[in-house]
Order: sequence, then C-alpha cells, then structure tokens
Amino acid sequence: MSDQIKITLPDGSVREFPKGSSSMDVALSISEGLARNVLSAKVKTTSMTEGQVWDASRPIDEDAEVKLLTWNDEEGKATFWHSSAHLMAEAIEALYPGTKFGIGPAIEKGFYYDIDLGDKSLTQEDFKRIEDKMLELARQKEEFKRESISKADAIAYFKQKGDEYKLELLDRLEDGSITFYTQGNFTDLCRGPHIPNTGVIKAAKLMNVAGAYWLGQTDRKQLTRVYAVTFPKQKELDEYVHLLEEAKKRDHRKLGKELELFTFSEKVGAGLPLWLPKGALLRERLENFMRRAQVKAGYSPVVTPHIGSKKLYVTSGHWDKYGKDSFQPIHTPEEDEEFLLKPMNCPHHCEIYKSKPRSYKELPLRLAEFGTVYRYEQSGELHGLTRVRGFTQDDAHIFCRPDQVEDEFKKVIDLVQHTFKSLGFEDYTAQVSLRDPENKQKYIGTDEQWEKAENSIRRAAAEKGLTTVEELGEAAFYGPKLDFMVKDALGRKWQLGTIQVDYNLPERFELEYIGADSQKHRPVMIHRAPFGSLERFIAVLTEHCAGNFPLWLAPDQIAVLPISEKYTEYAQDVFTALQQADIRGFIDNRDEKIGKKIRDAEVQKVPFMLIVGEKEQADLKVSVRRHGHGDLGSFTLHEFVEIFRQEAEKHLQTV
Amino acid sequence: MSDQIKITLPDGSVREFPKGSSSMDVALSISEGLARNVLSAKVKTTSMTEGQVWDASRPIDEDAEVKLLTWNDEEGKATFWHSSAHLMAEAIEALYPGTKFGIGPAIEKGFYYDIDLGDKSLTQEDFKRIEDKMLELARQKEEFKRESISKADAIAYFKQKGDEYKLELLDRLEDGSITFYTQGNFTDLCRGPHIPNTGVIKAAKLMNVAGAYWLGQTDRKQLTRVYAVTFPKQKELDEYVHLLEEAKKRDHRKLGKELELFTFSEKVGAGLPLWLPKGALLRERLENFMRRAQVKAGYSPVVTPHIGSKKLYVTSGHWDKYGKDSFQPIHTPEEDEEFLLKPMNCPHHCEIYKSKPRSYKELPLRLAEFGTVYRYEQSGELHGLTRVRGFTQDDAHIFCRPDQVEDEFKKVIDLVQHTFKSLGFEDYTAQVSLRDPENKQKYIGTDEQWEKAENSIRRAAAEKGLTTVEELGEAAFYGPKLDFMVKDALGRKWQLGTIQVDYNLPERFELEYIGADSQKHRPVMIHRAPFGSLERFIAVLTEHCAGNFPLWLAPDQIAVLPISEKYTEYAQDVFTALQQADIRGFIDNRDEKIGKKIRDAEVQKVPFMLIVGEKEQADLKVSVRRHGHGDLGSFTLHEFVEIFRQEAEKHLQTV
Repeated sequence: MSDQIKITLPDGSVREFPKGSSSMDVALSISEGLARNVLSAKVKTTSMTEGQVWDASRPIDEDAEVKLLTWNDEEGKATFWHSSAHLMAEAIEALYPGTKFGIGPAIEKGFYYDIDLGDKSLTQEDFKRIEDKMLELARQKEEFKRESISKADAIAYFKQKGDEYKLELLDRLEDGSITFYTQGNFTDLCRGPHIPNTGVIKAAKLMNVAGAYWLGQTDRKQLTRVYAVTFPKQKELDEYVHLLEEAKKRDHRKLGKELELFTFSEKVGAGLPLWLPKGALLRERLENFMRRAQVKAGYSPVVTPHIGSKKLYVTSGHWDKYGKDSFQPIHTPEEDEEFLLKPMNCPHHCEIYKSKPRSYKELPLRLAEFGTVYRYEQSGELHGLTRVRGFTQDDAHIFCRPDQVEDEFKKVIDLVQHTFKSLGFEDYTAQVSLRDPENKQKYIGTDEQWEKAENSIRRAAAEKGLTTVEELGEAAFYGPKLDFMVKDALGRKWQLGTIQVDYNLPERFELEYIGADSQKHRPVMIHRAPFGSLERFIAVLTEHCAGNFPLWLAPDQIAVLPISEKYTEYAQDVFTALQQADIRGFIDNRDEKIGKKIRDAEVQKVPFMLIVGEKEQADLKVSVRRHGHGDLGSFTLHEFVEIFRQEAEKHLQTV
Repeated sequence: MSDQIKITLPDGSVREFPKGSSSMDVALSISEGLARNVLSAKVKTTSMTEGQVWDASRPIDEDAEVKLLTWNDEEGKATFWHSSAHLMAEAIEALYPGTKFGIGPAIEKGFYYDIDLGDKSLTQEDFKRIEDKMLELARQKEEFKRESISKADAIAYFKQKGDEYKLELLDRLEDGSITFYTQGNFTDLCRGPHIPNTGVIKAAKLMNVAGAYWLGQTDRKQLTRVYAVTFPKQKELDEYVHLLEEAKKRDHRKLGKELELFTFSEKVGAGLPLWLPKGALLRERLENFMRRAQVKAGYSPVVTPHIGSKKLYVTSGHWDKYGKDSFQPIHTPEEDEEFLLKPMNCPHHCEIYKSKPRSYKELPLRLAEFGTVYRYEQSGELHGLTRVRGFTQDDAHIFCRPDQVEDEFKKVIDLVQHTFKSLGFEDYTAQVSLRDPENKQKYIGTDEQWEKAENSIRRAAAEKGLTTVEELGEAAFYGPKLDFMVKDALGRKWQLGTIQVDYNLPERFELEYIGADSQKHRPVMIHRAPFGSLERFIAVLTEHCAGNFPLWLAPDQIAVLPISEKYTEYAQDVFTALQQADIRGFIDNRDEKIGKKIRDAEVQKVPFMLIVGEKEQADLKVSVRRHGHGDLGSFTLHEFVEIFRQEAEKHLQTV
C-alpha cells in the first residue's frame, strides 16, 4: 500500500497527499484564504457509497472525493450552526451551572438546544447574557476536538455530571460508535461534524424559547427549547434581524386581515379561506389577467365539478397512492356510489379529452380551468394561504403529439415569464427536474421518451434565456418538469409556477388520437400552472409588495377625501368622472378630520388619495397624494387620469 | 230542513237551488254554452273541510261552494284525461277482448293505462286502430254513470270477467266505499270523478308504451303502460304534436351535444356536467353579464369553499332537516372532523357577515358569489342540466335592516327584469308565496315581521309592474318569497329566478348590527338568484332560442369560410380584423367544398358566415350569410361590423 492518497476535487482535478491528511490540509494546499473559510468538508472515500460531511480536521486514509464546505454551502452553514449549538450550551452551562442538556441540532435557519433549567425560566436579560458569553467564548477560538469513547466511559462521564438526558441517549447507542466533541470547557455526546474552532462565530442572537417534550413524547418532561442563530459577520446578523422584522410587517396573514382580503371561520373549518370582497376582486382580476393571456395563447376554458366518482381516481391511480391520507369518500345515501373531492383537475380533463374521437389536426388541445381542489393537510401544518385545505389552481392540461412538446414548453415559458413580469417578480430561476439515471425502473415511459422530453425542456429553457439548475432524480415518476422559483423583495425564494410532462395519465386513461397515418397514437400531457395556486400566489405577492399591489390589481385604486361635508358634492363629481374612466375606489364621506381620513387610506394602502377642499373645488382640481410617496401636487382630473394610466401600464405588458 | 240549498260561486254570488241539484244544474242556470263546457266541479259542502272534485252530474244535498271546472282549469283537464283513460280502455277491450286492466290515471299531460295484453304487443298500426275506435265511441256521447256497489257484487263482476288485477285492488277496499263507473260497454272500478259524456273528446293520440311492474313491485308481472293524450279539438292535438316535435329538436341535451356545450362522463358521475370549451365560454359570458350588473347594483363579490364543517350545517339547521338524504359527510383521516359538500352558500356568507362587527351604516351588505353547490338527487331523477347533482347558483345574500327590505326587493326585481330582457325572455310572471294564515305556527318570525315583509313584496312587485299571482301557504318556513316563471318560445313555463326573505338564518347565526341607537339589532337576509342556476338557465335558454343564442352570447359569432385554399390568406386578414373588433369565431380552413362548410356552420348555429372567394378578395369585401335568414349580400368589413354591432346591441341593454 502506498503512503499517498489521491484527492479528487469538485472541478475534477486530482491531487496527491500523504495518507492521513485532512480536508484542511487540502484547503491549505490551495490557499490560506480558503482554509480560513473552510467549515467542514463532504468526503466520499472509495469505500463509501455516499459522501459524508466530516470535520475539516479529520484524517483521510483512502483515495477520496472532497468538497470543501464554507458558509456559502447549505451543508457548511449546517455545520456552523450545529457547532454554535454547542457554543450556546457551553455558555449556558457557564452561566447556569447544573443545567441539563437534551439535543441541539442545526435547523433551516439557525439551531436550537433543548435544555432543563430546573425552575429557572429565561428572560430577555438572560438572552443578552448568553449571547455575550457565546461571543466571549468564541473569541477564544476554542477548537472542536473529536474523540472516540467507550460506552462505559461515556456513561461514567454523564453520571458524574448528573445529566439524565444524555444518559438516556447513550442507552440507545452501540459501544464502539460513540464519539464526544469538546470545545473549551464543554463536552457533548455528538456524532459531529463541527467547524475547526469557535473563532468564526462573530454574531449570535437568541430568537425565542418554546416548550418541547423530551423526545417529542407528551408524557415526558417538558424542556426549554432555546432557538438561536449565529453568523460569521455582525452585518449578516443585522440584515437577518431586519429581514425578520420586514417579513413580520409583510406577513400575508397580518396584511390579509388589515386589508380585508380574506378571513377564516372556525365553523367553516381550518385551512378553508373565505375571500372577502376586496380579496375576491383581487382574485377576479388575477383570473381575468390569466384568462386573457390564455385565450391569446390558444387555450380553451372548461368547467368541471369539484367531486368525481371514486372510479375516476382508481383509474388515475390517485386512490391507490393517496386515497388513505385524503379527505375520505362521500357516500350517496341510497345508491352504492362513492365520490371524492377532487385533489386535482387532470382526471376530469382526461374525460373531456375522451368525450369525442380526436385527430392529430386538433392537437395541441389546451384545456384550462380555474379549478378549486381539496387536499387534506393536518390542521397543525396549515399556514395562512400558503398551506390550505382548498385552493384554486390556474390549471391547464395540454394534450399534444410528442413532436409538439418542445414548442408547447416554450409557449408555456413565455406565459410564465409574462405573468411574473406583469406582477412585479423580476428575479426568478427555474429548476429542471430530471430522472435519476441510476434508478430508471422508478419511472414510467421509455428511455427514448425521457431523453426526448428532457432535451426538449433543456432546449426550451435555454432558448427562452432562463437561468436553470438541473436536479437528477427530482422528476415526478410520470415525467420531467420545470419548476419556477421566484425571489421576493426580501430575497426569500418561493416555488410558484410549474410545467410538467406526463406520460402516465394518457396511458391510464387510454387517451388516443388518429395520426396523419390514420393509426391510433397516444398523446403526451403537459400540466402547467403559472401562478401555481391563487391562494399561494396572492400570499407571496402580498408579502413581496408588502400589500402595495401593482396599480392594476389594487382593490381600491383611489380614495376621494373631501376635507369637510361642504365638498361632498364635488367629491362625488370627481368620483363619478373617475369611475367613467374605469378607475375604482371610494369616497370617504365620514364625519372625520382630513388627517384621520388620510391615515386610514394609508393603512388601507390605497395607491392614490385625492383630497378635495375649497381651493380644489374652485380650480376644478384634486390634490393628489401617492401612498408611500406623499403629496404629488394638484392636478386637473384629466392630468390625474394621465398620471394614473402611465403608472397602471408600467407593469402590465399586454393586459 | 229546507228543500233549497245555497250555492256560492267563486265570484261570491249565492244562488238557491232545490236540494239534490247538480253542478250541471248550476251551470245550466248560468248559460247553455257554459254547461256544454263543464267537465266537472270543485264542490265544498258545509260538512267538508276541503273541496273535492265531483262529477258535474252528482247531486248536492247541502249548502256548498261550487267552482265549475272546464278545459281551462288544471283540475278540469285532469277529469277529461281520466275519463279518456276509461275511453281508451273501452276501445282496447273492444279491439282485443280478454285484455286485463290495472290502473289508468290522468298525468301532467294526458293519461296512461297499465294493461295486460297476454302475449300481444302493440304496434303503430294498433295505435291507429285504438285512436280511431276511441273517437268512434266518443261520437256516441256515452254518458259516465256512477254507481255505488257492494264489495261482494264488485268481486263477482270482476271474477266473471277474469280480471285478477281489479280483484287485487278490490281486496284493499272497504265495503260501502266502492263505486263503479260505466260508459257504453265498459265498466271500471273507480272513485271518479268523470266528465258528463265522451262527446267532448274530439282528438286522441297514443304516444308510446313502456313496461311497468304491477303496483310498482319489481317481483310482480310487467304490464304494458299505454301513454296517450286527448283534446277537445283536433287543432289542439295538432298544436301539441307540433310542440312535442319542436321540443325534441330544441331539447337542450341534444343541442348541448351538437353544439358541444357540455358532456357527461360515467367515470365522473351521473348528474355532474363537464362543460366543454363552448359551454364554458357561454357560462363565462353569463357570469360576466351578471357580475357587471351586480357591481352596478352595489353587490360585493365573495368566494367561499365548496365544503364546510358539519358544525356549520348544524347551526344553519340544514343537517337536521336534510342531512340524512344528502351527500354523506367527508371525514378527515386523522382528526375527528366531518365536512359536508355545501348544498347552499348562505351559511358561508353568514360567517363572512360575522367576520367583523357591523354598523347600520354598512347595510345593506350585498354579498354575491357564483357558488357551486351539490345536492344529492337519485340517479333516476337526473335530467340533462335541469336536474343535476352539482350546479352553480348566481347567488347573493343581502343583509339589511328591516326598513330596507322593500327597497332592496325593488332593486332585485329591476335586476331580474334586466336579466330576462337581455336574454330574450319577454314573457314572465311572478308568484308571491305567502304564509298560510291558518297555520301560523309553521313559520318563524313575528306577525308584524311577516305582514311587513309580505306587504313590502306586494308593493315592490306592484310598483315594478309585475304580473303576479299570490299563493297562500307557499312561503318557505323562514319567510315569504317571489318566484319568477318565464314562458319559453314553446309556451312552456319554467321557474327561474327567486327572491326570498329570511328571518331564520340571522337568528340561527346570531347576526347583529349596531343601530343608530347604539343598540344591537338583528338584520334581515334576502336570498336571490336571477338566473336561479347557470345549469338550469342555460338549459331553458337553449330550448327557448333553439340553440340560436343572442349574438352577444353565441359561442362563435362568425365563421370565415374561404371558398378554396387560394383565399386562406385573405380569410386570415378578415378574421384578424374582426378579432380586433372584439368579434369571435373561427376560420374553416378544411379542404372541403364551400357547401359543406356552410352546412357545418349552420349545424353549429354560427350566427354569421362570411364567405370569401375571388370576387370578395378583389373587392375587399365579404359575402355575408345569416343563420336562419340566408344570404344578406356582400359588404366591406366596416359595413359588416356595423351590421354586427347593431344586432349585438339589440337585446343587450346595458352590458
């Protein structure tokens, strides 16, 4: 055996190192700067089937593929936060001796540690003390040291410490597989991996505490779950805190209430939104927008019922796959029939396709429906409009010949891009979800079909200038897809529109068309929804624009505010004239001071406030105030309509 | 006791007659002409609690109210047809001796008799023979003679005749209550009443035969049900036959298929229409029409889910009243919750009303929704779009103060009239359904509320110039209502729109508003739906206009028909220009002869066909053909658009 090992880097280059070298050695061989930023590494030695995230300092004894992980990698961040959890535990132990510790993992944004503080509960002052202590310890650049330990020694250690939680965890572990990690004065039972030392942690914030049953069992003791987040720079923490505050202000549940868009009722049921007039009008306008765009793009509307016989879902395969976890069937009292609430519109659309014989000349047939579907979600998982039990998809199914898939894909991408642009989402990317080439038996359809479809999607996306990432193994079992992710004003990513190829349903429903060769052929189906669902889209849009909807979409576009009742009549004239110009809104005729009227209109985020008093009436003008901008000056109605039109058309391309 | 009795006529006049006089005597005392037309009479003697229809010849022994019944009364027609069933039986017995008879009642249009012909089955020739025989017997003016008979004698009669069906019927009757009716050579077990003699039956037509189990029991013998209809004039029969043929041609199920408006699928389920593109567009236009009219009338749109927690329907009272016979509840797999498909939108709208405190200043609040509701109908009762299991109501609920009811009623009547007029229904009446004053305990709400509401409806209807009939006891238990009946082009009446006052749901949902007096008050609800449901309305409209929808509503308004492919390009220019003028349709570019293209467009009932060939291309014109009118001549596009616009605006008042 050689004393040298071969390390393959992500760019494909191969370097030799002495056996027992660490990822950190690899980093140092590249540059000092890189080494300073390395948090951990993804290592796949020749004897592993899958890569593992390792301590950067851990010796490598075999040839291996190595990917150095930094703050820019999700897995690097996870290591950073997991180590931060240990740092927080160290700080808490130093400040509150005798604290017992449960588990402390990294989560999507930050980390938590479940702790038992005895009778003590943590205050905001404690938060501050813990954060300060963490940073004080971090400045000491404590190294994370990994150590294999026998089960007996490990038990002895936590017995002496009196930590029954760790003892219970140990109880489940096999001797020989147990490791301890120690930084500074704190030692934890832990599989790792960890960052090289605490020095990279430059900012820490405790977010909140919550009760959490030990091991998630409601009959066990309730521990205190301390949520926190850390960063390698104070600036990043500041930005994050700002983002959280902004997100709170923009929360669509809060704005939905303030702007009277929607409500929920316990009697109707959780996750079933009731759309109030302003929200219903918003939906209506979005639907009309899409309807017009779809008519232009050659879609035909259809309307189908919200239930279907169970037979329909046995045919579609839905009953077998999801039946048990869905809303249960509806029986008819006198006839032996079962119906299901529709969880998707495609089976109904397949039945419309089948309602008459089809010729290749009719294809592509594009059937569109604003179809409200119902899916059972556990009540604990429901969240505002983003996780509901009933929602309306801007759904359509394109039935086409295999040679039409690429062209149809391009047209749908056009429609999605037009939609995002018109709604003010400028920043979006797309994920091409492909088949796992190692696991072809998981998918239906032939190799040829898949290669053709995947290449069609790639080419269509490239031609349309989409920024894409490709993900192997992320396709649906029935075909590849293209998912759009938009970045909102706070930089958060949301999955909205989707385009999916489907070979499955045409097969299951035995769909056919007569080709130019007079033979029967099977069409391909494309599922697509540019908004995704109206509920989710409106939620994301509301947060993106903080309730300041694009002018063409705003529930009320203007508010006419007479300074006193003396100007009610003139206010009405102004309002009527604007209504005739297809501008919508209201007159605030309440017996309130003008300041109050303006404040209320601002809370309602009405884009234009038109104030009318003595001077305006005399000059036949209005004083215009733009939400978020303040006074614009005084204008004739004609001038105002011009200003209004220019802004309304700014976003809206072709509606 | 006096020998005279007092007869009160419907106009309130009272006449004296010798005891034992008949209704015919009453008729004769008025005029010979009237007497000739009397078929039977509704008699309510002082000892009866409800009136009964009697033979006109039957002696009256007490003071009585008498209404003479003729062909113009529904009950008169029923007597005529019931007697005609006896006449048909007499004819059949004469032609096919040994025939056994079941029952033979009058039905909505005509009558039937269930007969046992042994092995014989009836052909069209038999139909003719029976009709001729009926008229031959009718010309003999056979009197219907009523006779009370003992059970024993009745049994003896039918035993001798060998008619086991009549014997089985007799088995169930009490001695002393049995009557026979005899005309000519035919005697039947029958309660009556009958017409004076067969002479008034001047026209007869056997419609069809069907199998019918004896007594409706599937384990008993299947008899032949012979359906027929008779009239007092041949002309009326001719008209009726014509009407039937017309109705068949106009059947919305047939036209719906030909015009590709909707379809059904066994896999989706019976009574659950799938709207095809042309039908979906028709719906969309009707919805938009109503939406615009409603916005003008101050309605606010809302959108609510198609399911609701069972709690909602326990509160509304629906669960107790209809729960057992409805689509059964949907369970969620993991949580102990039950949901129901919504059978109406009102409970959801009540929850929206309750979503915030309301002030008298906000009222009336008019919440409108095109709400799709689901009601369980037995599959045997389903019929095209007029009897379905899922339908979309153009629903709205007006929450108002009691003093606003009359004004709101007037506004809704305006909306209904505008709707009917715009859709070409010129002939309609309205029924005011009032409380049964003898049975007040059946209704909720105070006397004062009812009187106020009933008078409000009366005044509103009168002020709007509606032709109304009032029906006592036809109100819903929760309030009085106004139902609109339209007469279609064939003279058939359909119930479409409805306006209903409701005191019940505001009570059950504990709806409140703060009045000008700062006290809590209960609002009144008005339910209203001018179309009724989109499904039923489209069915009636289709039959009314025989698929020739008003131009603004037609799925395709024009078809551009190039004479050959040489003119494809010019056809496209024409089509594009018309699209820009907001005229919709298609180009028929098929490789077919122009005659075939015209025929197909005629079948599709496309209002305008624009034929383009060499001459049209050279002159920049189109040859215009109007569906149902033929060629109109050749016009420039500008001229055609003018012709089109004028017709489009003819019906449509304000859309």
